[in-house]
Amino acid sequence: MPLPHPIRFGANYVPSAGWFHSWLDLSPHAVRRDFEDLAGIGLDHVRVFPIWPWIQPNRTLIRQRGIDALLDVIDVAAEFGLSVAVDLLQGHLSSFDFLPSWVLTWHRRSLFTDPEVRDGVAAYADRLTRAVAGRDNVFAVTLGNEVDNLYPANPTTPEASTRWAAELIDVVRAAAPRLLALHSLYDASWYDPGHPFHPVDSVDLGDLTTVHSWVFNGVSALDGPLGPATLTHADYLVELAAATSLDPARPVWLQEVGAPRPDVPEADAPAFVRRTLDAVTANPALWGVTWWCSHDLDRAMADFPDREYDLGLFTVGHRAKPAAAELAAVVRELRRTGGRPAAGARAALLCDVDLRTEPERRAEVAPGSAFHSEWVRLRQAGPLAIVTAGRATDAGHLSARGIDTVLTPA
Amino acid sequence: MPLPHPIRFGANYVPSAGWFHSWLDLSPHAVRRDFEDLAGIGLDHVRVFPIWPWIQPNRTLIRQRGIDALLDVIDVAAEFGLSVAVDLLQGHLSSFDFLPSWVLTWHRRSLFTDPEVRDGVAAYADRLTRAVAGRDNVFAVTLGNEVDNLYPANPTTPEASTRWAAELIDVVRAAAPRLLALHSLYDASWYDPGHPFHPVDSVDLGDLTTVHSWVFNGVSALDGPLGPATLTHADYLVELAAATSLDPARPVWLQEVGAPRPDVPEADAPAFVRRTLDAVTANPALWGVTWWCSHDLDRAMADFPDREYDLGLFTVGHRAKPAAAELAAVVRELRRTGGRPAAGARAALLCDVDLRTEPERRAEVAPGSAFHSEWVRLRQAGPLAIVTAGRATDAGHLSARGIDTVLTPA
Repeated sequence: MPLPHPIRFGANYVPSAGWFHSWLDLSPHAVRRDFEDLAGIGLDHVRVFPIWPWIQPNRTLIRQRGIDALLDVIDVAAEFGLSVAVDLLQGHLSSFDFLPSWVLTWHRRSLFTDPEVRDGVAAYADRLTRAVAGRDNVFAVTLGNEVDNLYPANPTTPEASTRWAAELIDVVRAAAPRLLALHSLYDASWYDPGHPFHPVDSVDLGDLTTVHSWVFNGVSALDGPLGPATLTHADYLVELAAATSLDPARPVWLQEVGAPRPDVPEADAPAFVRRTLDAVTANPALWGVTWWCSHDLDRAMADFPDREYDLGLFTVGHRAKPAAAELAAVVRELRRTGGRPAAGARAALLCDVDLRTEPERRAEVAPGSAFHSEWVRLRQAGPLAIVTAGRATDAGHLSARGIDTVLTPA
Repeated sequence: MPLPHPIRFGANYVPSAGWFHSWLDLSPHAVRRDFEDLAGIGLDHVRVFPIWPWIQPNRTLIRQRGIDALLDVIDVAAEFGLSVAVDLLQGHLSSFDFLPSWVLTWHRRSLFTDPEVRDGVAAYADRLTRAVAGRDNVFAVTLGNEVDNLYPANPTTPEASTRWAAELIDVVRAAAPRLLALHSLYDASWYDPGHPFHPVDSVDLGDLTTVHSWVFNGVSALDGPLGPATLTHADYLVELAAATSLDPARPVWLQEVGAPRPDVPEADAPAFVRRTLDAVTANPALWGVTWWCSHDLDRAMADFPDREYDLGLFTVGHRAKPAAAELAAVVRELRRTGGRPAAGARAALLCDVDLRTEPERRAEVAPGSAFHSEWVRLRQAGPLAIVTAGRATDAGHLSARGIDTVLTPA
């Protein structure tokens, strides 16, 4: 698929009142007020997260009113010219897992391997996808937010994880050929050698690759909040994804990136936004950026990791935070100059690890590894691709990715 | 507290459309149609089961609209002259556990022992109890349906289980002094020597003792469907409870009893109803009987144990089943003769086990044990109490329970 022009910018939609619990009491008025905030800073899309067990409380019972609530949110987005990406299986959100009683305790069975559960999930994916496909402003369906976080509570193996996602991608594609069908994983799948979800799934399954860049997963400990490893982590993940794909033209969506405290103190958030986006928007593989998240969490709600409360572009009182102003400025400036930086030729750093085939070597590209450190060092001089040894001599691959030189790590 | 006169008869309310998932789409019209069925066969009360995680999706967020739905159901009951017992923590229903995300997976912590979870549950119990106490037709608040089934998913110890329930009973009492505050356990707590919920909790905590009699837990394998052990199991449990209490006047509510297939084939259900009730209504400790359950389950819903689908007094299409007709006849006949059989003096069988102090000996009174077999044999001649050795020489205890002879097992 071709890259969008201009680069897409959006927000992961976290309702300002009641977080995702608000699905139980959906107020289109409240959603309207939230989307007004987002459209007001120039965003073009939102990513939305229905809660799976509330829509499918029994394996064979899918609540139409639950689907209707989702359609209502999509329609409110349309009022503001916002297009919508829908994530199906939540599943996992900000440390909380929402799981139906039919996979818990006395009915405990793995979401990823039990055949009946997989059938139930497929029915849910089919039904929701068909419903949202009827709305013109929907552009993508993702299987679920960071479904790999449903492990280890749901045991799986690399083979089972791949099969599970591939089957569901097929379900979504069949239900809505017009929409992007997407997989979504937490970045542990890129760096943890033992993780039973593999990078190859991110780059082979679905219509483009999604990555989620969270600086608390290593880089902020290296040089945060405004050091080069921290500010280029989103770009690094996009590059890792591009280097791992067999298709040199496969776009990469930075589906989540945020400025979490205390890794990024409030005073540094605007600079973090600006410089993270400067780095990643120069990447020729970038499809778009979706900020996590739209709105802060009300501190009256308990048990969230502390950093989750203040990730919003807007406060719960609808005040735009400095990060929002900076994001808006970046979007505005980019659009003024065509929406996407001109892609010049660039060098690539040769990577001895091919994550497609050597997932056991993931630690060798993780934050702080020799390879990552060298890439960060060289990246300070300007855009820098990554290329695996197996594709470093493929002229077509290099040229499609705009790579004119291959550098060998020192 | 004094026994009610007449014996109370009711049903555990299982909505005919959508089971308890219907709380997510509450239709007072549908509830009205269901309660019309129950009032039509002469029942005086219903026991209702809100779903905990849908009302308290975050530890510090209790949804008023969830409470309002509960109040709506209570008000519909009032239209039919039905009084209402409310169970708080579901929690466990027909093999399914409903647990909020704040006690699952990444937030995994025991409901019974974690101090923050206990605070959260106490807040929930307080808020719901205060809300329902404002309705004149509510008469009881039970902590939750068979809360012991939330173990082993939530680890506990006997001491922790007792403390947990005692604290919550205090919360309910403080919130609604007018209402019965009650504990509720599955009968494994009476028979399984290792179960971390003890019989003493059932007889010491709360304003009366509740028991749940399910013939699939042993007796139907002995002589079901219409053998003496099967037909007297409800009476046996009421007697065990009466024998275990220090208060000889403490009432026992047979809060659940049903005619489960295949243990009780459909053709035998009316005789099972008649003869089970004949036995248990003769028990002077009996407060009332609440049949499980009001309505069958739609077989379009998956994953229930097979026996759960056909437990209703009514079909999902509102047809009274033969068991309902028999229950209605028993209620009618009892009311015609004063509502409660005259309590004559009776013998008691001496039990060497005191479940208050010797929970490790529970297997010695379980279905099929020598004691149980002897009790069943002698019970065929007429009502038969149970008395522990420690209370067998207490004339006041014996007299208060209407016991004139103490028999020693052969």
